[in-house]
Amino acid sequence: MQEEKYVVGLDYGTLSARAVLVSVSDGRVIEESVYPYPYGILDTVSGLTSDGTGFLPADYALQEIDDYIDAMFHTIREVVENAGCQAEDVIGIGIDATSSTFLPLLENKEPLCKAQQFCRNPHAYLKLWKHHGAQTQADQITALANERKEPFMMRCGGKVNAEWMLPKLMEIVEKAPDVYEAADNFMEVSDYLVYLLTGEITRCMCHAGYKLLWNEEDGYPSEDFLRALHPQLSSLKEKLKGRQLQVGECAGRLTQEAADRLGLKKGTAVAASLIDAHVAVPSVGIDGPDKALMILGTSCCMLLCSEKLSYIKGISGCVRNAVLPGLYAYEAGQSAVGDLFEWFVQNCVPGSYEKEASDLGISVHMLLSEKAAALKPGESGLIALDWWNGNRSCLADAKLSGMLLGLTLRTKPEEIYRALLEAAAFGMRAIFEEFEKGGVIARELYACGGIVGKNPFMMQIYADVLGQTIYTASTDQGSAFGASVYAAVAAGIQTGGYGSIKEAARAMGKKGETKYEPIPQNVEVYHRLYQEYKMLHDYFGTGGNEVMHRMR
Amino acid sequence: MQEEKYVVGLDYGTLSARAVLVSVSDGRVIEESVYPYPYGILDTVSGLTSDGTGFLPADYALQEIDDYIDAMFHTIREVVENAGCQAEDVIGIGIDATSSTFLPLLENKEPLCKAQQFCRNPHAYLKLWKHHGAQTQADQITALANERKEPFMMRCGGKVNAEWMLPKLMEIVEKAPDVYEAADNFMEVSDYLVYLLTGEITRCMCHAGYKLLWNEEDGYPSEDFLRALHPQLSSLKEKLKGRQLQVGECAGRLTQEAADRLGLKKGTAVAASLIDAHVAVPSVGIDGPDKALMILGTSCCMLLCSEKLSYIKGISGCVRNAVLPGLYAYEAGQSAVGDLFEWFVQNCVPGSYEKEASDLGISVHMLLSEKAAALKPGESGLIALDWWNGNRSCLADAKLSGMLLGLTLRTKPEEIYRALLEAAAFGMRAIFEEFEKGGVIARELYACGGIVGKNPFMMQIYADVLGQTIYTASTDQGSAFGASVYAAVAAGIQTGGYGSIKEAARAMGKKGETKYEPIPQNVEVYHRLYQEYKMLHDYFGTGGNEVMHRMR
Repeated sequence: MQEEKYVVGLDYGTLSARAVLVSVSDGRVIEESVYPYPYGILDTVSGLTSDGTGFLPADYALQEIDDYIDAMFHTIREVVENAGCQAEDVIGIGIDATSSTFLPLLENKEPLCKAQQFCRNPHAYLKLWKHHGAQTQADQITALANERKEPFMMRCGGKVNAEWMLPKLMEIVEKAPDVYEAADNFMEVSDYLVYLLTGEITRCMCHAGYKLLWNEEDGYPSEDFLRALHPQLSSLKEKLKGRQLQVGECAGRLTQEAADRLGLKKGTAVAASLIDAHVAVPSVGIDGPDKALMILGTSCCMLLCSEKLSYIKGISGCVRNAVLPGLYAYEAGQSAVGDLFEWFVQNCVPGSYEKEASDLGISVHMLLSEKAAALKPGESGLIALDWWNGNRSCLADAKLSGMLLGLTLRTKPEEIYRALLEAAAFGMRAIFEEFEKGGVIARELYACGGIVGKNPFMMQIYADVLGQTIYTASTDQGSAFGASVYAAVAAGIQTGGYGSIKEAARAMGKKGETKYEPIPQNVEVYHRLYQEYKMLHDYFGTGGNEVMHRMR
Repeated sequence: MQEEKYVVGLDYGTLSARAVLVSVSDGRVIEESVYPYPYGILDTVSGLTSDGTGFLPADYALQEIDDYIDAMFHTIREVVENAGCQAEDVIGIGIDATSSTFLPLLENKEPLCKAQQFCRNPHAYLKLWKHHGAQTQADQITALANERKEPFMMRCGGKVNAEWMLPKLMEIVEKAPDVYEAADNFMEVSDYLVYLLTGEITRCMCHAGYKLLWNEEDGYPSEDFLRALHPQLSSLKEKLKGRQLQVGECAGRLTQEAADRLGLKKGTAVAASLIDAHVAVPSVGIDGPDKALMILGTSCCMLLCSEKLSYIKGISGCVRNAVLPGLYAYEAGQSAVGDLFEWFVQNCVPGSYEKEASDLGISVHMLLSEKAAALKPGESGLIALDWWNGNRSCLADAKLSGMLLGLTLRTKPEEIYRALLEAAAFGMRAIFEEFEKGGVIARELYACGGIVGKNPFMMQIYADVLGQTIYTASTDQGSAFGASVYAAVAAGIQTGGYGSIKEAARAMGKKGETKYEPIPQNVEVYHRLYQEYKMLHDYFGTGGNEVMHRMR
């Protein structure tokens, strides 16, 4: 019998990184290591600025690149050591991160923020996905692209998001032209970490596809378009250096130095960098089209692969080969899911409930879920629009806001809580309906993410509202585990890995034991309630009454 | 100098009665006595019924007549004794009560509920204004009256309310025909109490006008109409016995027996019975047309006297002479005001706020008001529809419900609290606008009721939203004090009282020292926000989207 081989998956979240060591044959997670970033999200750059007023604007989200580098060497070394496996049995490393989370580099590959000249300039730092300083630029790009009928607009749902790389680059051009000028290369942080391990400058196409309006057929937006945005941007492609890779490709091999620091063998395969949400798809065993994965955390990201290229309004993007080979990977999402429920618990639950939960030794969420579970669907008479953080898909309108209707003097907190859970599920259903209009159908539903294990009551509501069985993930290390699947592909058959993402997904990925079946009578009630949701959704979301915009 | 004379005002609320002894010359409140009803609102009649399942339906609201009788003798005697004034200096008694709150009597004037034969029948008992068992009957009366274009419909806003006497009588006919048959007379409880003091069977026209579709010109609904409702109702007028009186008239004089029990003189004047909200009008000094009084408590009742008879949609009623002689007294209202804010405090305020209020030694309402007062109008981006208990005026639709819009992950409890206060004020503005359409204009605004003294912040919002100065009452005994004003009129000049309600209002009634002036910049912002409120009001309230009906 052949010796078991292992791969490492490393996932960079917003505030921490997590590595897992996984067996290649069956996808068992052997070891895990978590590393919270000591610096987190920066309040200032380079400590206080000389004038003592260096605090960053509220919509900025910058980080220290050292947090990422330290996390990588610490966590990978830890899982390998703790597993006690032989260095030569670890055959690959896969790294995913949030996106677009990137940094400017000098020609010598040093981050600009490390240079004396730029260390006090916020735009020289690593910009996190949730940096929202480029909203104006995003709006300008959308307007110009629509005016010029740029073909890439059909793949991004008709709207450019401020969290993507292009608006953030345009922000740098406008607010810090010296930084833009001095930058030799703008790299996604996951590509940069791959470089640190391998010495290879590569760019995985998934970032370009979802965050830089690139696609296989047309490449990047034209120089002409970029020039029209800003003259300095016309030469942008020169600052996007690196060999472009497909997901699952081998980006390079561990250098001696990196291997020594990690306790691994020189030459170990490192996969092309990945986007955090996307790598979860093979982790639940999805290996083909028409199976949707909902990643339910503070917000919700939904991924659905299809053989079909179709215009779907208000999606986050559609990129061929970005998740599974040969398929268009559609991404869409909701801006507030767990965040919405947490807001409710923090702001709207009376002290008596907090006390009751504490007396029972359960969380307030659990108490509310238990009370809400005793209600019948529709019993409370409440209905909500789940737009507490705007609507990401498919209205793509950050200025929309939450609404709650049907309140009476008898309304109880658990009824509102249930209405919020239902609204989140209705929002998901509205997204699937938009996909159906474009002929892209989710025939199987999967869910992973923090909420799934914690709130079975909510998962049942999703099954009832969506009217389909929901399969769950088998681990709660979703993204890190997913990255390890791509690592096994990058390692390839010859070292004990897999020849394709499909094969790796089938062998390593798997559903959890828990699944949620729709309850027919609830499905019926929710079908009716959803019509109410949709009518309110369209009235407030598509111009019937723009009060939400006017009230902002 | 003439000896000071005194009058007693006695006000029956839903759960307690309150008497005040007042000086006739200047309306000073000398003494006060409150009597909570020991039985309150009944859960059962005659204890448990024989089968042990005698609990009443949730929408029933029945009371013990003994509570009312005991309250009368206890409180009047107490204020007279405590004041230490001479019995002969007390020249009049005025009694007001909620309406329509009535009971059936046998020919011997005994309440039916006291008879062995009927004491287990809920319909033999005193029915409180808020008894809601006659909704079906109210809807039938509305439908038939509209079909027949009955002229009385123009005075009641186009809709018959289940709280009025006629639907409740029809409920008795249908559900307890033996009770209806056995009843010799159906009397408002305030008329019945006047009878107990004077031995005179009288009916004040205010009840008939607002609760029995009576008016000066046409009298009661026609026999033909009543027969069409139900054959047994055609003879209804025979069961509405008693000399009909105007407000301010003397109904009769204390019998020896009543005088002895009260410690007063035989022959003391007793005023025609009154409706609780209405008597507050002269108490703030309103003595003429176009001055609106808002009584702000758990709900809101607005009274506005005008020289003009006009159809105003969705009002509670319009009766000539019912408040001030020669004027049409319009009543309209909001179903939840204080109740709405109390619901919020009970159900939606986190433990941390409760603790903060307790640490500061203030109520949660006060804490929320202080935090909310630090916000600018419109700053929160929230807007609400105040229909937590339906809409009384001018949509007259009990099935409407509350709505809250503009919620974000940054929304704080005090922002919602402020939005609810604003919504109540917007609701009031919508009522005034409906009156303006009919040419009935509130040129001066007065406010009284429990909220006024307790929440200056809310009063300022009302002034800002309505764009007018709001004068307040000088006492918080509103209705009991108001009843004493009518007592002084019933006593008449010859015994030291007044010759007219106007004169009595001028001498005894008065504004409080506190008034609220609109703040121009707030008026401007609220003018804009009100347009948003009105658009939502019309969309959800007048058929744009009947989701609130469908969700009930």
